[in-house]
Amino acid sequence: MSDPASHTPPAPVASASGGLAELRARFPVLARLAYLNAGTNGPLPAAAVAAAREQLEREERDGRAGMPHFERRLALAQQLREGYAARLGCAPADVALTTSTTDGIGRVLLALDLRPGEEIVTSDEEHPGLLGPLAAQRARGVDVRVAPFAQLAEAVGPRTRLVACSHVSWVSGRVAPAALAQLDVPVLLDGAQGVGAVPLDVHALGVAAYAGSGQKWLCGPEGTGMLYVAPKLREWLRPPAPGYVSLADPLAGLDAVPHADARAYDTPTLSGPALAQAAAALDVLAAAGWEAIHAHAAALAAAAADVLRKRGRDVLARDRTTLVTWRERDAAAAVARLAEAGVVVRPLPHPEHPDLVRASFGGWSTPADLDRLLMALPD
Amino acid sequence: MSDPASHTPPAPVASASGGLAELRARFPVLARLAYLNAGTNGPLPAAAVAAAREQLEREERDGRAGMPHFERRLALAQQLREGYAARLGCAPADVALTTSTTDGIGRVLLALDLRPGEEIVTSDEEHPGLLGPLAAQRARGVDVRVAPFAQLAEAVGPRTRLVACSHVSWVSGRVAPAALAQLDVPVLLDGAQGVGAVPLDVHALGVAAYAGSGQKWLCGPEGTGMLYVAPKLREWLRPPAPGYVSLADPLAGLDAVPHADARAYDTPTLSGPALAQAAAALDVLAAAGWEAIHAHAAALAAAAADVLRKRGRDVLARDRTTLVTWRERDAAAAVARLAEAGVVVRPLPHPEHPDLVRASFGGWSTPADLDRLLMALPD
Repeated sequence: MSDPASHTPPAPVASASGGLAELRARFPVLARLAYLNAGTNGPLPAAAVAAAREQLEREERDGRAGMPHFERRLALAQQLREGYAARLGCAPADVALTTSTTDGIGRVLLALDLRPGEEIVTSDEEHPGLLGPLAAQRARGVDVRVAPFAQLAEAVGPRTRLVACSHVSWVSGRVAPAALAQLDVPVLLDGAQGVGAVPLDVHALGVAAYAGSGQKWLCGPEGTGMLYVAPKLREWLRPPAPGYVSLADPLAGLDAVPHADARAYDTPTLSGPALAQAAAALDVLAAAGWEAIHAHAAALAAAAADVLRKRGRDVLARDRTTLVTWRERDAAAAVARLAEAGVVVRPLPHPEHPDLVRASFGGWSTPADLDRLLMALPD
Repeated sequence: MSDPASHTPPAPVASASGGLAELRARFPVLARLAYLNAGTNGPLPAAAVAAAREQLEREERDGRAGMPHFERRLALAQQLREGYAARLGCAPADVALTTSTTDGIGRVLLALDLRPGEEIVTSDEEHPGLLGPLAAQRARGVDVRVAPFAQLAEAVGPRTRLVACSHVSWVSGRVAPAALAQLDVPVLLDGAQGVGAVPLDVHALGVAAYAGSGQKWLCGPEGTGMLYVAPKLREWLRPPAPGYVSLADPLAGLDAVPHADARAYDTPTLSGPALAQAAAALDVLAAAGWEAIHAHAAALAAAAADVLRKRGRDVLARDRTTLVTWRERDAAAAVARLAEAGVVVRPLPHPEHPDLVRASFGGWSTPADLDRLLMALPD
């Protein structure tokens, strides 16, 4: 155990008072743990768990058939779509409901239906959830070219049909270059560490598509997510395998056409409890105020980076996001030691950097969480 | 209200005693309703709802990070995969976890990556969950040819690359022709009304792929399902967009290759509560005995068909399955009237047959359910 007197106190940051103090109290896990891993899965608000439980019990008691069940599911889906759209800065009609960031990425790549010899540009800092679908494109003969994250815009060439990269790097917390907004080719952003973590406007980003997670910074259940598809992109893209909910006239047989809006990219089925839980989690966060959440989380993460550097840690170059990544001599041992002290962070399984540890700060985090991290950090 | 004395009593069927009587008592909705719509969504066992609730509360209390969370989810996924495999009559390694039948169908169609001019044969009795993905293939230039359900095998020609049709027709309850097992071209079955409803052995069926639902006859949550992909088909198919869980080495970047087994077709994320609920529902059904479930449900459905015919109804030609479909002069009115009497059946939104009503019988159904249906049926 390190000596509590020896650690540098965190730099002053916005204190978690008012809306944010109330926000913290709504997550039971935070009463016990310094939970700093929303970058994997966010903490669950009690109100969202209660909403899931209530819907589960309704289905158990009443069955899951007839108009009341489907109308309720449709209303919850619309509520969730509107909530996601508000986070993305776009119209609800431009947002599809998916099961994960990877799911959304896959839908766009498959809809593009690129041909051998056409090219996708990606970066050297991507998650397997993007690299797996890109590897499948490569297996089909599509060229996938890797450029440094900061130089993505310059890597675009005449055969490039798509740039696909992180909005916020899961490794470093850096933000994709602003120059991507000026490109003529469509850009697909992996927003797993973006949506809900940082202020976001897909129009300002100039992206054609943005895939995000529901279970991370939006504190929803695993198996939820969203996909923004710009109206222009939808004009020349074909939804790859639209199910009942994605069809404008599901009874038209083989003449059925997908919805003109982004429902064409919806996953076929999200359960009532998952929809209720995800929507209720958005309500909890919205009540605290998104501006306050973003400002607080970014300030606390910046403070963490500063103090970790003062403690002699090599902190990866980052931007104003919610992720802080640094090197430990033995990352696994450090993460285990922190876990024993009730501090939840994660090692990054990066093949070229096996010594990385990442902490994620949310609107619900406090300087006390950071204190606990610093207290339990190896010397 | 029809006169109770005027209806023909149902033909004798296996009485719901012993294991099946206990099974019925495990579904709270059945205490109140004659719930005859598992063909849409099965009734929920209390034990499965309790398992979902328990997992939800664990996640709320402990967070969703670190090895304990992911090991638990992996164990639940394996348990579910094994349970699905037992229903399909295949090895767990040949089963992918999906979110729905439509999801599984889409994965196979996209993995096939057919070219314009190649052909898929389907039937005239298919669900929008298959027709939507087929319509998308047609939009890519693939020919989709429609044959009568009973004559599918004869419709295969030299350009046919796939036969895609129902195992059990959602309209009539008929079973796909046995001759499909002898075809040289791969067969993909839509098993939404098959798996869990009728005895099933994918090897005996001779199919290359079989997509099924978790929320219907297996009484799991919406957003669960399974996809059997035969080892031979996997050899020449490319998983369309594999995520982290589908990769043999997720850290190999663009060199990552999918698992050789069917995990290559897994959906990226199923939530802990959904996995726990689906697995617990299978346990409840297995405890009653699958042979007894299948025999009882088929006998009760056959009895229903007989007695509906005696009541002058035009019952669609069917096979030994769990679905019974008949014509009413006003299907919507009949379904509403039945609903008022606590009998849950559904109208079939078939554009060419707007007058169809369908009842679904499970191992949990009783002759008393059928009695209630007959009592409330219009004269």
